[in-house]
Amino acid sequence: MNILYNEEIDGPLSKVDRADLFAELRQAIPDLLILHREEDLRPYECDGLAAYRTMPLLAVLPERVEQVESILRICHARRVPVVARGAGTGLSGGALPLAQGVLLVMARFNRILELNPKGRYARVQPGVRNLAISQAAAPYELYYAPDPSSQIACSIGGNVAENAGGVHCLKYGLTVHNVMKIEVLTMEGERITLGADALDAPGFDLLALFTGSEGMLGIVTEVTVKLLPKPRVARVLMASFDSVEAAGKAVADIIGAGIIPGGLEMMDKLAIQAAEDFIHAGYPVEAEAILLCELDGVELDVAEDIERVRAVLDEAGATAVSLARDEAERALFWAGRKNAFPAVGRMSPDYYCMDGTIPRRHLPKVLRGTAELSEKYGLRVANVFHAGDGNMHPLILFDANEPGALERAEELGGKILELCVAVGGTITGEHGVGREKINQMCVQFNVDELSFFHAVKAAFDEHALLNPGKNIPTLRRCAENGAMRVHQGNMPFPELERF
Amino acid sequence: MNILYNEEIDGPLSKVDRADLFAELRQAIPDLLILHREEDLRPYECDGLAAYRTMPLLAVLPERVEQVESILRICHARRVPVVARGAGTGLSGGALPLAQGVLLVMARFNRILELNPKGRYARVQPGVRNLAISQAAAPYELYYAPDPSSQIACSIGGNVAENAGGVHCLKYGLTVHNVMKIEVLTMEGERITLGADALDAPGFDLLALFTGSEGMLGIVTEVTVKLLPKPRVARVLMASFDSVEAAGKAVADIIGAGIIPGGLEMMDKLAIQAAEDFIHAGYPVEAEAILLCELDGVELDVAEDIERVRAVLDEAGATAVSLARDEAERALFWAGRKNAFPAVGRMSPDYYCMDGTIPRRHLPKVLRGTAELSEKYGLRVANVFHAGDGNMHPLILFDANEPGALERAEELGGKILELCVAVGGTITGEHGVGREKINQMCVQFNVDELSFFHAVKAAFDEHALLNPGKNIPTLRRCAENGAMRVHQGNMPFPELERF
Repeated sequence: MNILYNEEIDGPLSKVDRADLFAELRQAIPDLLILHREEDLRPYECDGLAAYRTMPLLAVLPERVEQVESILRICHARRVPVVARGAGTGLSGGALPLAQGVLLVMARFNRILELNPKGRYARVQPGVRNLAISQAAAPYELYYAPDPSSQIACSIGGNVAENAGGVHCLKYGLTVHNVMKIEVLTMEGERITLGADALDAPGFDLLALFTGSEGMLGIVTEVTVKLLPKPRVARVLMASFDSVEAAGKAVADIIGAGIIPGGLEMMDKLAIQAAEDFIHAGYPVEAEAILLCELDGVELDVAEDIERVRAVLDEAGATAVSLARDEAERALFWAGRKNAFPAVGRMSPDYYCMDGTIPRRHLPKVLRGTAELSEKYGLRVANVFHAGDGNMHPLILFDANEPGALERAEELGGKILELCVAVGGTITGEHGVGREKINQMCVQFNVDELSFFHAVKAAFDEHALLNPGKNIPTLRRCAENGAMRVHQGNMPFPELERF
Repeated sequence: MNILYNEEIDGPLSKVDRADLFAELRQAIPDLLILHREEDLRPYECDGLAAYRTMPLLAVLPERVEQVESILRICHARRVPVVARGAGTGLSGGALPLAQGVLLVMARFNRILELNPKGRYARVQPGVRNLAISQAAAPYELYYAPDPSSQIACSIGGNVAENAGGVHCLKYGLTVHNVMKIEVLTMEGERITLGADALDAPGFDLLALFTGSEGMLGIVTEVTVKLLPKPRVARVLMASFDSVEAAGKAVADIIGAGIIPGGLEMMDKLAIQAAEDFIHAGYPVEAEAILLCELDGVELDVAEDIERVRAVLDEAGATAVSLARDEAERALFWAGRKNAFPAVGRMSPDYYCMDGTIPRRHLPKVLRGTAELSEKYGLRVANVFHAGDGNMHPLILFDANEPGALERAEELGGKILELCVAVGGTITGEHGVGREKINQMCVQFNVDELSFFHAVKAAFDEHALLNPGKNIPTLRRCAENGAMRVHQGNMPFPELERF
């Protein structure tokens, strides 16, 4: 897939003696579940980005922190790479195994350890599902705010690794804004606590550093998350537009008016049609784009915001605006949006989901550019995304059975991401870099910046054993791809050339 | 002051040849303002924590990024430590100079480079005053949210260094939540960009790592901050209580009811009396404690929240509740709070301002413990603080002319902070660690955790030249203070013993 990728990561492949490693793990941790037969390992060969597949050397499924500690100590001593995996729902290949590495499956750490309604927090193990936290908090009228589309399945440990977002992160923040404290095991098996039970912690903000680090700095063994009171009322407006640019401009206008919706989502014609065919949500199939704008809070405030948003939408040239009549229609409006990906999937044998983030004010420009690229490459692109955050999810439709189609889709995806970077945006919003976007990181960052990433990585994981080949590209990879941005013409860290 | 502190930082002091350094700086940067005479350096010998004073070797006041780059390259080559200083309003001695170091004064970087109302951001130089950003944004009905009490004087560069908060940070977040991007020069003079114009950036979150790092990782040369729309209406409630514990409980109850006030401040009897004598704000001098609760937003929402907060306050046992009648009375209520520190200063020759943060639910317990410690040490303590955040500011009253009084005040302060840590809190909320709380960091963190701080520091500043002796204590300091928490009984990084 990714050109110039070399087995395994970008250095010489170190062969590991599987039988020997198995024997040591078995002896050190007699009750550890270790998978080693091909049929047992098969379900773990990919995560949510199924286009990338690698069979791990071994998969281990510990259920106690002491077991994880022993696994890490053994792998560290043997210099065996370790890839952590939560629920495996990630969309960028962040949990893609290594053929010569151990896959550390944290799924059995699935207990909610403490739920404190008064302190408004929950202390959970990393394998607890995102939605399970909100379900456990529901009796207290509380919930955990970040809500990735995969929330029914994805785990909080994976959310921390990817700094997951969701429909509501414009108003309620990303994972990093909703996590108070984590317990971590380093590659050397040391236990450290990052963050605090209080609002702020002194010293360097290592909690924020770990959040979104894609399993490259340590293994999360416990997470304390904030719980928020459920909004008392939520209502949703749907607006139609006769161009995606006009809808994009309306997004900037709503935020510019000082309104922060609970959710602000956009879909273009292709996505609208796909969703309507699949869900019958009552979407206007003749529209070029729709916006779904949810307002939540207390009754009076929501009522007033609805009127303000209506005025902004009218001013921005909406051709129709409707308010979901009741909770049932609201659920239906959202069902269309939430099922847009599988709906698009029904229109095409394959699709490739991108995840770029741009400054909101450039939405019209980037949507126009994406349409031009779509035409140039001869591949249809559906847009369904978190417009309020400027977090775009172009879905590129293709047929993998057609020779060269996958490569063309990947190239188009790369071009779209480069367009995002060109307007001051980034190559990922909430899906992470993983293996998928490792080459685009060479475009996003210059050599100095990448070198600091490697230096920080080395501070926690000297031998680069945790999830190598993801998130932060080696300088060699960038150089060989010809994409490297050399800043001020020098390599600042000669000693880092090995990366 | 801090026991066991060794000139200069905790290693052997390296003598610098002042004349020689001066000559090199002069030759390399002919138009650089360099201060070297005692009378010129005197104003820079301390920051807002005036109990700690050191004359710097030299002070430099650059006005262009290229000058800063040259200064850093020269100091790096000579291994001369560099302490950055903004407006010098910090309260923890974070900008305290070193006798054998250069003080890098960033005050002349005072231009607002760009103010984009549509993109809702401002791009400013680090020496721009916090309040100046809001003033420049006012014509667009926008403002910059974090508002430390020193906002009229403190600079945004210093705010980033300390991750400054303020009265409104419960609702609007700390500096880290309101900064999008920073330009940084490393100690080696490399320029790097951290963060992005978009909502999220890929790779490790080095922007969050730098925010609050107290000038130990790099020099900030430009800051892009978020601007928020001004709340349309703000009203303030004042409630009286017959015990600090009852007021503390009411704080937890308000937040527990799902209301997020724009500000939620508490003052105890001593603070109330001091403020009332000074400002005549109309405070109830017979009360044991008062709460000031500001609600902001749109008209209807604020009106409803006022009624909800009133109900919670009544339930929590408030002896009186009054709503500021108009904008003038609201300003008066806040004037008492904002001038509480100088007001307490009128009651005592000296006072020592603490800054601990605790989980909100433990407010009653910690307030009771503080009162007991106050009695034990025979020193009066006034409490004025951001109750909603659990960010406490006990003011310890003493007379420095009385032998041993300062030491007793410091010891009492240390005990109060240890009490904060014991309930799961931290030794600083918004004032930073600086020099002042360097010993308490040995209580807050264990050896493993401190070692990772040092490893991260070394990733950016190999020779520990940026602001040494602040924020992160050397392991030797902790060991000699006997306060070191050894985790699992081992020193994880033998090579870090030099720290």
